Amino acid sequence: MVRLKKITMLIGGVAMAALLAACGNIGSSTGGGTTGTTTNQSGVQTTGQISKSEYAGVIKNGHYLTSNARGLTASTINNSFNLNSFEGGLLNISKQFYNPANYVFQEGQYLSSSTLRSWLGRKSKNNPEGLNPKDNGKKDNSRKPIYVQSIEEQDFMQKNGDNLSLKGITIGIAMNTVDYYQKEQYGATFQQSISKTAMQEYGNQVAEQVVQRLRKTHGISSDLPIVVAMYVQSQTDNLAGGTFYANTQTKTASIDKWNKLDIVNKVFPLIGASSKDFASNDSKSFQNFQSQVQNFFPTVADVTAQAQYQDEKIQGEHVTITTQFYSQTEISSFTNFVAQVAPKFLPSGVPVDITINSANGIQAFLSRDSNDRNFQSHIFTSY
Amino acid sequence: MVRLKKITMLIGGVAMAALLAACGNIGSSTGGGTTGTTTNQSGVQTTGQISKSEYAGVIKNGHYLTSNARGLTASTINNSFNLNSFEGGLLNISKQFYNPANYVFQEGQYLSSSTLRSWLGRKSKNNPEGLNPKDNGKKDNSRKPIYVQSIEEQDFMQKNGDNLSLKGITIGIAMNTVDYYQKEQYGATFQQSISKTAMQEYGNQVAEQVVQRLRKTHGISSDLPIVVAMYVQSQTDNLAGGTFYANTQTKTASIDKWNKLDIVNKVFPLIGASSKDFASNDSKSFQNFQSQVQNFFPTVADVTAQAQYQDEKIQGEHVTITTQFYSQTEISSFTNFVAQVAPKFLPSGVPVDITINSANGIQAFLSRDSNDRNFQSHIFTSY
Repeated sequence: MVRLKKITMLIGGVAMAALLAACGNIGSSTGGGTTGTTTNQSGVQTTGQISKSEYAGVIKNGHYLTSNARGLTASTINNSFNLNSFEGGLLNISKQFYNPANYVFQEGQYLSSSTLRSWLGRKSKNNPEGLNPKDNGKKDNSRKPIYVQSIEEQDFMQKNGDNLSLKGITIGIAMNTVDYYQKEQYGATFQQSISKTAMQEYGNQVAEQVVQRLRKTHGISSDLPIVVAMYVQSQTDNLAGGTFYANTQTKTASIDKWNKLDIVNKVFPLIGASSKDFASNDSKSFQNFQSQVQNFFPTVADVTAQAQYQDEKIQGEHVTITTQFYSQTEISSFTNFVAQVAPKFLPSGVPVDITINSANGIQAFLSRDSNDRNFQSHIFTSY
Repeated sequence: MVRLKKITMLIGGVAMAALLAACGNIGSSTGGGTTGTTTNQSGVQTTGQISKSEYAGVIKNGHYLTSNARGLTASTINNSFNLNSFEGGLLNISKQFYNPANYVFQEGQYLSSSTLRSWLGRKSKNNPEGLNPKDNGKKDNSRKPIYVQSIEEQDFMQKNGDNLSLKGITIGIAMNTVDYYQKEQYGATFQQSISKTAMQEYGNQVAEQVVQRLRKTHGISSDLPIVVAMYVQSQTDNLAGGTFYANTQTKTASIDKWNKLDIVNKVFPLIGASSKDFASNDSKSFQNFQSQVQNFFPTVADVTAQAQYQDEKIQGEHVTITTQFYSQTEISSFTNFVAQVAPKFLPSGVPVDITINSANGIQAFLSRDSNDRNFQSHIFTSY
């Protein structure tokens, strides 16, 4: 019923590009207030916090409490870039509503795989709960597209004696602007575009329905804060994931008002963009960096980046360099060189990460937090 | 003539295990004294130093000055663990003789690929310079084994006006305790053991010859400091590389005295080791860590480590965890958890690194310098 997309259940995460973390999460482990990780094998503990900006997670009966819909998002979302940006971005949105200092993160427990699979399907006699439109039998652009691609639940808990109580939920809804479909099984893949307006209108209705259904779910009170975050997938051939375009929090069974988000991902070097593009200066700086690095070795290195903008201001950059190394000393020298060049050309005041790969995988990486001038580096080696 | 071993020219470096750096080289980029990286495309610049404990490298005519025997070590050494520990370890030995604050590192320029290939071959009519014994025609344990597997040159320079002058050389010689050979082309691989004593005696003679030949090489003066470092490869099925067993520095055409090195690599958990093994306590602590981490998810994680000992004292540990993740939030929670557990069980006072992999490659890594109590972490993600 639900059309499962191509990517493997085993989470892609990094894929070929091994792109680096958005949130500058190199943080010293502070131990945090919540420790847990005790030897007590029954009841509930937490993983502990690695820093005050990261959630502790829930350990139950000695194991991590995995999602009741474990792997569903990985099996429904279009590619590993979307998977990364949807799941990672959703957690960042949650942090704005539920402070990691006061809340414990729990993988979604209220919506099961089977519930979500029926919600993500088309509405039909056999699937009255389907959130996608009824099949009108058409096989061309007059068909009704699949608007809703994936739904993910996150729970936020607080300590209540020896137990944890549910204090908030976040629901991420991943929408399509392009629906990929086959006219016949194993046939060619066709694309059906969905206008931004149509997607948003449909998404708002879906969000209302999801909130109403959650209010009727056992264990979820009528005034529990529910955050809903609307995400639009990027197209499958894009080298960056999609973005969140709206969010809201409700303590009732309906949604009053949406916060619009103006978030855009760019891939550098920009191809064919006008000089009026708000990212064009950053792209030019990136191209200067690229030309410094590209010809370091006799063989040319591949140098690309993802940048994220909110309200047309850059939020961070993930740079990926892939080249051929012939010795450990070449890796050291190249990493040194990149650390010298990067501060001159890459954006300052925002987190920047650089992964250095060979055909055999990651060899080194560098990163800089928003407040630093210099890059930290790490070269992967072994005894 | 020289028997080229299996591993690819494209440096393995990290391979499946993606094991982490020995030398705790997370260092802030200090800019260093030597900057270079200028736009001047002629003459000699340097890469700059990422920290005072890392060498700047040589840039000539706008490109990194690659080795005159580029890729030779990668093509001769037995596996990626040996490659990493031989080349990385050699640079660490060089640092003890040529302080990175005062010397610039240059990839070996004096011994070419063709020279080294003939040196690494068997001595014969056609190859009088071969450092390995003449073929006695035997195809069993009475054959003469290949003692010398690889030779690597590193040059150390100082600024002299606009130029760099050679001020020291390091030669690494990789020896075999097991020689792998075929009785016929494409046939089965047989092993011939070499006793430690025989290997050391043969190696010392080879080292003498190499120094004598270097003294006759154009550009190398009769009193230039030459460091020679003797390395023994680990067997191909070992999960750690080999170690350096002796080193020396000479300013003449012969070698007076060797410094013996007592360096041992261990793979944890130790299998079948007696409780008298000097690594047995560290292995027990590691096994406690392993059992905490292994059962975090419903599916079992694979947890192993490499540890290096000098004079029976632990020098550092590289931990590798491989498990299956079903979401970005599982990666975050797992990383938090590992950061909490690691300080309790892994050795303190020495650098420790932890790589967290899925089937798709690295997802997160944590590291701690010798002086820190808490781990720094990084989760790899993308926009």
